Amino acid sequence: MVEPPAPAAPVDAGSLLGACAVALDALRERRPLVQCLTNQVTVAVVADVLLAGGASPVMASAPGEAQELAGSADAMLVNLGTMPADHRATVPGAVEAACAAGVPWTLDPVGVGALSSRGTAAAALLGAGPVAVRGNASEIRALAGASSAGRGVDAGDVVDRAAQAATRLAGRHGTVVAVSGPVDLVTDGTTVVRVGGGDPLLTRFAGAGCALGGLVAAFSAVAQPLVAVVAAHAVVGLAAGRAAPAQGPASFRTAFVDRLHALTGADLLGTGTTSGPGTGPALLEVAR
Amino acid sequence: MVEPPAPAAPVDAGSLLGACAVALDALRERRPLVQCLTNQVTVAVVADVLLAGGASPVMASAPGEAQELAGSADAMLVNLGTMPADHRATVPGAVEAACAAGVPWTLDPVGVGALSSRGTAAAALLGAGPVAVRGNASEIRALAGASSAGRGVDAGDVVDRAAQAATRLAGRHGTVVAVSGPVDLVTDGTTVVRVGGGDPLLTRFAGAGCALGGLVAAFSAVAQPLVAVVAAHAVVGLAAGRAAPAQGPASFRTAFVDRLHALTGADLLGTGTTSGPGTGPALLEVAR
Amino acid sequence: MVEPPAPAAPVDAGSLLGACAVALDALRERRPLVQCLTNQVTVAVVADVLLAGGASPVMASAPGEAQELAGSADAMLVNLGTMPADHRATVPGAVEAACAAGVPWTLDPVGVGALSSRGTAAAALLGAGPVAVRGNASEIRALAGASSAGRGVDAGDVVDRAAQAATRLAGRHGTVVAVSGPVDLVTDGTTVVRVGGGDPLLTRFAGAGCALGGLVAAFSAVAQPLVAVVAAHAVVGLAAGRAAPAQGPASFRTAFVDRLHALTGADLLGTGTTSGPGTGPALLEVAR
Repeated sequence: MVEPPAPAAPVDAGSLLGACAVALDALRERRPLVQCLTNQVTVAVVADVLLAGGASPVMASAPGEAQELAGSADAMLVNLGTMPADHRATVPGAVEAACAAGVPWTLDPVGVGALSSRGTAAAALLGAGPVAVRGNASEIRALAGASSAGRGVDAGDVVDRAAQAATRLAGRHGTVVAVSGPVDLVTDGTTVVRVGGGDPLLTRFAGAGCALGGLVAAFSAVAQPLVAVVAAHAVVGLAAGRAAPAQGPASFRTAFVDRLHALTGADLLGTGTTSGPGTGPALLEVAR
Repeated sequence: MVEPPAPAAPVDAGSLLGACAVALDALRERRPLVQCLTNQVTVAVVADVLLAGGASPVMASAPGEAQELAGSADAMLVNLGTMPADHRATVPGAVEAACAAGVPWTLDPVGVGALSSRGTAAAALLGAGPVAVRGNASEIRALAGASSAGRGVDAGDVVDRAAQAATRLAGRHGTVVAVSGPVDLVTDGTTVVRVGGGDPLLTRFAGAGCALGGLVAAFSAVAQPLVAVVAAHAVVGLAAGRAAPAQGPASFRTAFVDRLHALTGADLLGTGTTSGPGTGPALLEVAR
Repeated sequence: MVEPPAPAAPVDAGSLLGACAVALDALRERRPLVQCLTNQVTVAVVADVLLAGGASPVMASAPGEAQELAGSADAMLVNLGTMPADHRATVPGAVEAACAAGVPWTLDPVGVGALSSRGTAAAALLGAGPVAVRGNASEIRALAGASSAGRGVDAGDVVDRAAQAATRLAGRHGTVVAVSGPVDLVTDGTTVVRVGGGDPLLTRFAGAGCALGGLVAAFSAVAQPLVAVVAAHAVVGLAAGRAAPAQGPASFRTAFVDRLHALTGADLLGTGTTSGPGTGPALLEVAR
């Protein structure tokens, strides 16, 4: 493991952005090993985005291997999307190994609310203590027990409608919850951070959400949870903004990964913030 | 489910092209949920192409999930390429669920003729009533019981040699059969449609054929089968033509997905047709 | 199978480069069928790179199919990265089928040294007689029984420190061993070849190493082992060099695949060689 993160989170937007910048530079310098138990549809995108962000991804999902790596990695991602049955079966043991070794892990509850079995799996995992949970509005609402009409993994509710569910979930489980959307919402149950940037084309190729979950996990190796989650969303928002305009989703994806690879802490600091509602196109906005 | 498709197919090239244009615009507007049971080599390409085409792909292939989604999706793809054993085992139950719910499903018999076990699986699935079957010439000939020397998934026979097999297969099983190749052939057993466009580079990256199968499934949610299959081939042919010339297969793939994303019904209408043989570089040609 | 490769390897750099050029042109002409038992993280990259190189990849990894294809393909790749359990279980039978049919196969010991179970699997496979073994320095050192501090699949030791391990491994098992790195090292236990070119961005997207293993397998269908392994590294080094400079890892990958697709034997011949240490930016350097 790399050295443990600092104990307390800053809560004004300027300090938070500064902490995100420090975290991004730390990610590039330490290159933490991130064990990814993730779905097979987007696994390559997750790996490429983690590499571009500065982490060292490893996808050791097979029985035996998943647990072995979970206990020695610097952080872990658990993404509930489609996996072979034997890979899915390794999740509880890997989570146990990560917890025993103090390895921070992130839960991405893909498809919760749309598929009944995933709700049960996600609820069990929540109790095991992820440092962060990242989903879209439908998934976070379903996880918090709110009603949802979600049909697919990118379906439905807007971010704001999920704010209450996210805060409740974070408070109840002592974790940081992110609701990804046009404007992302991140909360530890007390502080609420909104992260701007991004581009609609992020939803027009497969894997941007999964990759964001992977970046949350990566940042959790080098920063305390609230900073880690905000930093992941901020770098994606900023890189996506710089990748636009693009001719279409495929060239956008290429540009997004390139821009992410080039991003520095100083770039983040240059984006500005606001501590109140709506003073301009700031990347971060903080409320309590 | 989105609203059921219209009952009858137009059979002259102009009407058919018009119906394809309507179908493309409908795909963009309705964004049907397409459940994809598909191979792990090209799954990301299938997802990206369906998103670019306007559909909402979901790859819920795990036991339990496959069946759950099959019954509630707007359409389904079954691609016989390499899957983990537990995913492959879900195929019959998912097909049963789709049939019970009236969800149209498409069969892509990848590797039939080259691998003995796939022939058995494909034959059983044919009997379950797919609305469409899409393969290359070797696969369609093998499926129809014609002799073939196919060794690989992109091997062999030219499209024209498979025309008789395709017509026989379509008539026997009451389905629409597509033979993809330099010029694609689509038939419902009576009408035979040839679709032009395309580019040789479509065969120089992995997944164009699988993605085409996915688009056939997507269009089957918004159009009757003959129109759906022709529309899928037409949009691929047109987008590929607009992506050329490219510096190589990787930049071609990027351009192809971008062009597909930008394509509208009006673009299809602008391509022209011919109802007889060879009056120019028309996208569609129809014979009975 | 395509016709068997010539029996003896040239050992001066000029002859070796000439043989590589012949092999590349043969790959394009014969398009050998390469059965790939490979990991699911990078399988699409392996397929795309093999297609760009001129081979016909097939990933028939399911039980039954893996063995069937192994005995009829022109070459086979066995990559130990993350696979579903049922695919991994097919490896020994597929290797047996390949050996029985005289199909040359290549071992890529991904993660050996970092994951204990893979060391056992790799040791058993080494005894079955691969024509080539390709790994990074950590993996080759671990495979040869040298101590290593490898933590991840792209971890650690520099190529030169692995030279002795590679030579020992090649001599002991009668195989050709490649250590991929900033300058690649290839040896049959007697001759040592260093291959230049390349670009640091090759390590910033997932799959370049796996794709290189796939190309080694592909070339082994059309050239004797030392030439095959050197040719694979030389075409990757040259294509990567021509892809630079790029704006980032994603556009680099696109350019790399495009350049690889365009590469000819004549391009290889134009790169120059040296038979002694360091006379310039030559692609190949040979020592005994």
